[in-house]
Amino acid sequence: MSSLVMPFEKGSAKMRKLLGGKGANLAEMTNLGVPVPYGFTITTDCCNKFYNEAEEKIWDELKNQIFNNIKDLEQKSGKIFGGNTNPLLVSVRSGASVSMPGMMDTILNLGLNYDTVEALASESNNPRFAWDSFRRFVQMYGNVVMGVSLHSFENEITAIKNKNNFTEDTEISAEQWKEVILQFLNIIEKETGKHFPMNPNDQLLGAVEAVFTSWNADRAIFYRGINAIPHDIGTAVNIQMMVFGNLGETSGTGVCFTRDPSTGENIFYGEYLLNAQGEDVVAGIRTPHQIIKLKDDLPKIYEELIVLRNNLETHFKDMQDIEFTIENEKLFVLQTRTGKRSASASVRIATDMVKENLLTKKEALYRVTDDDIQTLLHPRLDEAEKAKKIALCKGLPASPGGAIGKIVFTSEDAIEAAKHQEKVILVRYETSPEDISGMHASEGILTACGGMTSHAAVVARGMGRPCVSGVSDIKIDEARGVIQVDDLILRKGDIITIDGATGEVFDGKISKLPADISGPFQEILNWAKAEKTLEVRTNADTPTDVAKAVEFGAEGIGLCRTEHMFFEKERIIEVRKMILSEDKETQEHALKEIQNFQKTDFIEIYKILEDKPICIRLLDPPLHEFLPHSNNEIEELASLMKKSPQNIRERIEHLNEVNPMMGHRGCRLLLTIPSLLEAQVHAILSAAQETQKENVEIMIPLIATLGEFTSLKTRIQAVAKEYADVNFKIGTMIETPRACLRSEDIQKHAEFFSFGTNDLTQMTFGFSRDDMGKFLPEYLKQGILKNDPFQVVDTEGVGGLMKKVLSTLPENFKTSVCGEHGGEGKSIEFFNKIGIKTISCSPFRVPVAIVAAGRCA
Amino acid sequence: MSSLVMPFEKGSAKMRKLLGGKGANLAEMTNLGVPVPYGFTITTDCCNKFYNEAEEKIWDELKNQIFNNIKDLEQKSGKIFGGNTNPLLVSVRSGASVSMPGMMDTILNLGLNYDTVEALASESNNPRFAWDSFRRFVQMYGNVVMGVSLHSFENEITAIKNKNNFTEDTEISAEQWKEVILQFLNIIEKETGKHFPMNPNDQLLGAVEAVFTSWNADRAIFYRGINAIPHDIGTAVNIQMMVFGNLGETSGTGVCFTRDPSTGENIFYGEYLLNAQGEDVVAGIRTPHQIIKLKDDLPKIYEELIVLRNNLETHFKDMQDIEFTIENEKLFVLQTRTGKRSASASVRIATDMVKENLLTKKEALYRVTDDDIQTLLHPRLDEAEKAKKIALCKGLPASPGGAIGKIVFTSEDAIEAAKHQEKVILVRYETSPEDISGMHASEGILTACGGMTSHAAVVARGMGRPCVSGVSDIKIDEARGVIQVDDLILRKGDIITIDGATGEVFDGKISKLPADISGPFQEILNWAKAEKTLEVRTNADTPTDVAKAVEFGAEGIGLCRTEHMFFEKERIIEVRKMILSEDKETQEHALKEIQNFQKTDFIEIYKILEDKPICIRLLDPPLHEFLPHSNNEIEELASLMKKSPQNIRERIEHLNEVNPMMGHRGCRLLLTIPSLLEAQVHAILSAAQETQKENVEIMIPLIATLGEFTSLKTRIQAVAKEYADVNFKIGTMIETPRACLRSEDIQKHAEFFSFGTNDLTQMTFGFSRDDMGKFLPEYLKQGILKNDPFQVVDTEGVGGLMKKVLSTLPENFKTSVCGEHGGEGKSIEFFNKIGIKTISCSPFRVPVAIVAAGRCA
Repeated sequence: MSSLVMPFEKGSAKMRKLLGGKGANLAEMTNLGVPVPYGFTITTDCCNKFYNEAEEKIWDELKNQIFNNIKDLEQKSGKIFGGNTNPLLVSVRSGASVSMPGMMDTILNLGLNYDTVEALASESNNPRFAWDSFRRFVQMYGNVVMGVSLHSFENEITAIKNKNNFTEDTEISAEQWKEVILQFLNIIEKETGKHFPMNPNDQLLGAVEAVFTSWNADRAIFYRGINAIPHDIGTAVNIQMMVFGNLGETSGTGVCFTRDPSTGENIFYGEYLLNAQGEDVVAGIRTPHQIIKLKDDLPKIYEELIVLRNNLETHFKDMQDIEFTIENEKLFVLQTRTGKRSASASVRIATDMVKENLLTKKEALYRVTDDDIQTLLHPRLDEAEKAKKIALCKGLPASPGGAIGKIVFTSEDAIEAAKHQEKVILVRYETSPEDISGMHASEGILTACGGMTSHAAVVARGMGRPCVSGVSDIKIDEARGVIQVDDLILRKGDIITIDGATGEVFDGKISKLPADISGPFQEILNWAKAEKTLEVRTNADTPTDVAKAVEFGAEGIGLCRTEHMFFEKERIIEVRKMILSEDKETQEHALKEIQNFQKTDFIEIYKILEDKPICIRLLDPPLHEFLPHSNNEIEELASLMKKSPQNIRERIEHLNEVNPMMGHRGCRLLLTIPSLLEAQVHAILSAAQETQKENVEIMIPLIATLGEFTSLKTRIQAVAKEYADVNFKIGTMIETPRACLRSEDIQKHAEFFSFGTNDLTQMTFGFSRDDMGKFLPEYLKQGILKNDPFQVVDTEGVGGLMKKVLSTLPENFKTSVCGEHGGEGKSIEFFNKIGIKTISCSPFRVPVAIVAAGRCA
Repeated sequence: MSSLVMPFEKGSAKMRKLLGGKGANLAEMTNLGVPVPYGFTITTDCCNKFYNEAEEKIWDELKNQIFNNIKDLEQKSGKIFGGNTNPLLVSVRSGASVSMPGMMDTILNLGLNYDTVEALASESNNPRFAWDSFRRFVQMYGNVVMGVSLHSFENEITAIKNKNNFTEDTEISAEQWKEVILQFLNIIEKETGKHFPMNPNDQLLGAVEAVFTSWNADRAIFYRGINAIPHDIGTAVNIQMMVFGNLGETSGTGVCFTRDPSTGENIFYGEYLLNAQGEDVVAGIRTPHQIIKLKDDLPKIYEELIVLRNNLETHFKDMQDIEFTIENEKLFVLQTRTGKRSASASVRIATDMVKENLLTKKEALYRVTDDDIQTLLHPRLDEAEKAKKIALCKGLPASPGGAIGKIVFTSEDAIEAAKHQEKVILVRYETSPEDISGMHASEGILTACGGMTSHAAVVARGMGRPCVSGVSDIKIDEARGVIQVDDLILRKGDIITIDGATGEVFDGKISKLPADISGPFQEILNWAKAEKTLEVRTNADTPTDVAKAVEFGAEGIGLCRTEHMFFEKERIIEVRKMILSEDKETQEHALKEIQNFQKTDFIEIYKILEDKPICIRLLDPPLHEFLPHSNNEIEELASLMKKSPQNIRERIEHLNEVNPMMGHRGCRLLLTIPSLLEAQVHAILSAAQETQKENVEIMIPLIATLGEFTSLKTRIQAVAKEYADVNFKIGTMIETPRACLRSEDIQKHAEFFSFGTNDLTQMTFGFSRDDMGKFLPEYLKQGILKNDPFQVVDTEGVGGLMKKVLSTLPENFKTSVCGEHGGEGKSIEFFNKIGIKTISCSPFRVPVAIVAAGRCA
């Protein structure tokens, strides 16, 4: 039979199934020549045998192999397990082939008892440290292996602190820890009826058994159930020598990065402390030294680190974050992992590594995240300054960038302030389409309600305005002009700062750094453009946005929402007249006005686009979205229309809907009010005729049945007879589950499909994106969802429907995605894989989409 | 080649493709010995040849065959086409193998000209009739064949009426019609540049060509597009001899039924007039005779009709409605079709025919419609009395039965009135769950908003209360306590009558007839029970409803909505405390109270059910549905909870949702507030333990992911450990598209599935059933939808998802449908076909479901 236990140097990264993820990684590192502390792995086979054959006991052969390996550890380390001098201490960790919450926690310092603790005390010359380590081990073992509640232990520590008027654990002396340990041992005996094992061998077997047992803990079983992980893959157990950096002036501990994580510069970067443990660095009592000084202190170790730095970068082809400990002039690496870095560093490192021939251009694209690109595109808050402040409250990071300004509560106030060059943050319960001008006039937007794809979030991202949404801890009292967070009251005019990249909200001002679209950024973008096969378009509907998107590299417009053209002041009046007037003549006149406005817009947009394609979606939202809400506006409109405000209110009430998302909108509106469709088609086609625009695509929203599409197509074609020389295509959004199910019929009549993955996600799950803030956090926490499905496309449900649709289409049928997912990396990878040809996203996501498309080409 | 033209006696019902539907039917009748007027059919092949080979002209061979058949008609009838005496007149009708709007209308009286009209005048001794017939022919032909707008003709008739101060067409004399005809001929010449054809042969060929041409009219092409009807199946043309009942005292016309259409009694029933046309009967100037008198007037004809009556019933095995004309002592049947009948007659005829060995029991089930059963189950309005009144306005027939009562606007008023035995109609903009007691206390419900599956409609059907919903013409002003329809104002306390079977609303009182569940009704129900294989359960949640459903034959409860138990006065207070209180203790106390209430209810329901199964759905609606709306209630609650009304209002506002249908409800609520689930499971299982109830099924609502289900299942099982001796199953609603798509995984963990076809329809289409009233009527009118998908299940979209789910299930997996569709005949047929095992519907639909299940077994 295969060996039950395997030293790190005998394993490899490929043996993940047998060694678990952690074990395979430790083996790989060891074989790479990284001096990880010696250790071995008890294989997953053992866990299965433990349950299937061994009656949940550690059987003899396994015991033998474990202790043989402990002997091997003793030889390698020159230490003795349970020894009165130079004692070998180990850590015990679980590790399945997939990571799994609910499994046993790490046990450190195993091997300590009343003998070995004294050795540790004298060798470290630090009895307090030794007895605290023993105390921690007893506590951890007592809880994890022997099942005593942590609560009982913590009560004891609190008691001793109260007795001595201590506030911190660090104030407790070695002698006092000894007392505490005695209490702990008493508690354990009382609660379990068993002695705490003082024999290191018993300690070790107990810990291994506890890891195996934790495999079938309720929470682990539950987690496997939700995630469809088989119950018979078992967990491995990793046993590794403990090393200590506090055994004298030839010991120490530190952290280094293979490049500067904040600028990306190719220099060795890090800090260390001699005669110290990791926690001493964290505690901040001693100031660590720059890594370069180690060259003087311990030149051999420094050389080793430099070699390691080069080897690891060559191997991993990425910047590494290395934690190390020096024990008596011997270097041990506790961990090496891909280093966290700033967005600028990320781009700099990726491009540098291409120049150093460490990466291909395509590989470099994988090193730049969506968030990196987003961050660089927007002005950011000064991190150093931010670190000194505590956030008032936190919402969702709805649109990146930092914004500072005075609080205003209405779009009117925002517009007024903009006239005086005043910077404001628009604070609202939630925004509605009539707030668009107000949002434009603001530095940033904060909403108390709504998710990552709420109106505020989507529009803000489209405009490139920072936005924090769904700040549920904030109470807004518009009438009184105040907001309240806990006991703090802020008033209209007070300055706040929001960080749209993190969702944080701060009282007062934090400085801003400019956007950083420097050389490396452009290089990455160019490489991605060269690689990618997906067409990347933009969702834009104003000349400003279109120009911005084209500058960012958009190859056309994938979604031009005609309704966004309806909201400017003089236009919205006409739209409202059209909706509310009861005589045909006024309606027709208003429609004609709207048509003229739209035509002007289209001409301007067509000119910016030149020969790039444009896909125009016909009116989608329900009519009530265009109606006024405030009493002022209602009265103004009433006097303009020579009606009573009561009359206007009744109409608004009449148009109101219980579930507007599934109400009278999209093609349903066009089918019941055909003149609305006709006016838009006239505007689109007459503008095309005047500018000789090619590549115009007209898109019908929200169909669920073939009849809706063919009926509207016929109407569009009837209008188009007047513009015989304009070439255009007619297609449809695919955004209801039923349209997906009936795509085979629909495709016969349509010239293109564009997946509206926002609405499709809403209807497939039955999740209202405006309301899901109330349960999404809990879903993510419980692991029921891995991601917000409105950010990362749900490949199983929504993706399943998309694949079904694609399987019914002829080879060259044009397909695209124009939901928010069209600007998200993982989703783009999925779309590319299933055969989508075009993606479209808001202007500020275009660079993200280009890089993602380059990656997955 | 096959003959291009076929006399009726040579065709048959099987030749539908060649002869079209109408032609095949006329052939079948002729072969049955029914004396239909002689005629022939030009086949659909000719239409195709007309387009494909003949350059859209009538070619010679076809011409020859048409005129040969006209000769044949002349011989059979003894009349002459274009003859100066005894002229043969014909009708020309289109007829494809599927019926198709947009095709050419009928042309009558073809063959009339200035010669033949004189012959008709003298033979009928009625010049006015003859000239009016000619005028109609010219008008019809001028419009349909020659393309002159009807408007032009109508202007002429209006002009002559104005000149003579006539109000009715019937006042125009023969001489005046002659004048009109001259004007018509002028108009035709002026508008078309062509003479009106006076030669009957030319008239005939023109009409045939017009039928063929109408095959490719825009509207017909459009209709075929929407309905996926091939464009190459062509239309046939039917040419049939005209007969006249007004040629003297041995001529006449009448209508008869083979049984009494109002009682179902097996007697010959009908009426006739001698020397008259059908329109004379309709005009009501002469009073028709009972059919029995024909025995004296024309005994031979009477005998012929008696023979025909027996033959037709034997052949069609159903009651027939026969239109006949007698021309010079010769009987012609113009039409025979299944006769319309009252609900009681329907049941009586079906059961009688089984006894007469005309039908098998199974066939009899097909003769009773869903509406018949519904009608008989409820008290109805007196039709005779109703006929004398004009409806104030009309809404949707949301729940059948007639109700009379005083108007009230609030549930409180309804409950108050019920205490004094006053009958009231609850009139609301729309109802919400807190109106349930008020609805119970009312005779009927009227809502201005909402569709056939709105809250009011669903609850009213469940209770068996008549309901008219979506009466959009009504304006409700609750504050003033009035409703307004046009200029009529009704006040609280005024009496109205509603007809839930038709949607009509009447001012004042109409008498009511009792429900009619007599012998034949029970017979039908018993036969259906014997036939059916589907299990029929009910959706019920109060002891009263459960008892009613069991009485009607329900085999268990398919959907017990726990939330309905929350709305009674003392309970709703606890529910509101649970939702709104911020301290845990009050919440837990409230939950405990709710648990006790529910336990009591379950015990009562279990006892009524005895060993019948019950499927209990855990709490489904969003919490805000339980909260008060009116200021009174909010203030009352605030004082009870010792909070400020403002505080309560803020909480309500906070819980409010944009799209509650897709919001924080169902399993999403249970996952975020586990104590809510636990209290319900305790109530369900402790009641089962106390009553030793078996067959309890716990159903989790609204899942979209496997994790939601397994997570809640684990929680239920944890609670169930306290009730180890209770056997129960855990399953889930399948009501989101995503649950359908992921059913293969979910079924591994669930013990049953119940399709919630209401929500599934909402999400598959993206149609909010509360809002679709704004576009559904237009969709039905345009033929985009054939049915309201919330009434008749959408077999293509929703049904496609259901089939997909069923294909992933192991053989004996329990499946059911508990949406509104579970009580609708066509839907039940579909469910049975795809392999559903159980259906469940509201108590008053149970008999409907049983009969439907019997039919499709």
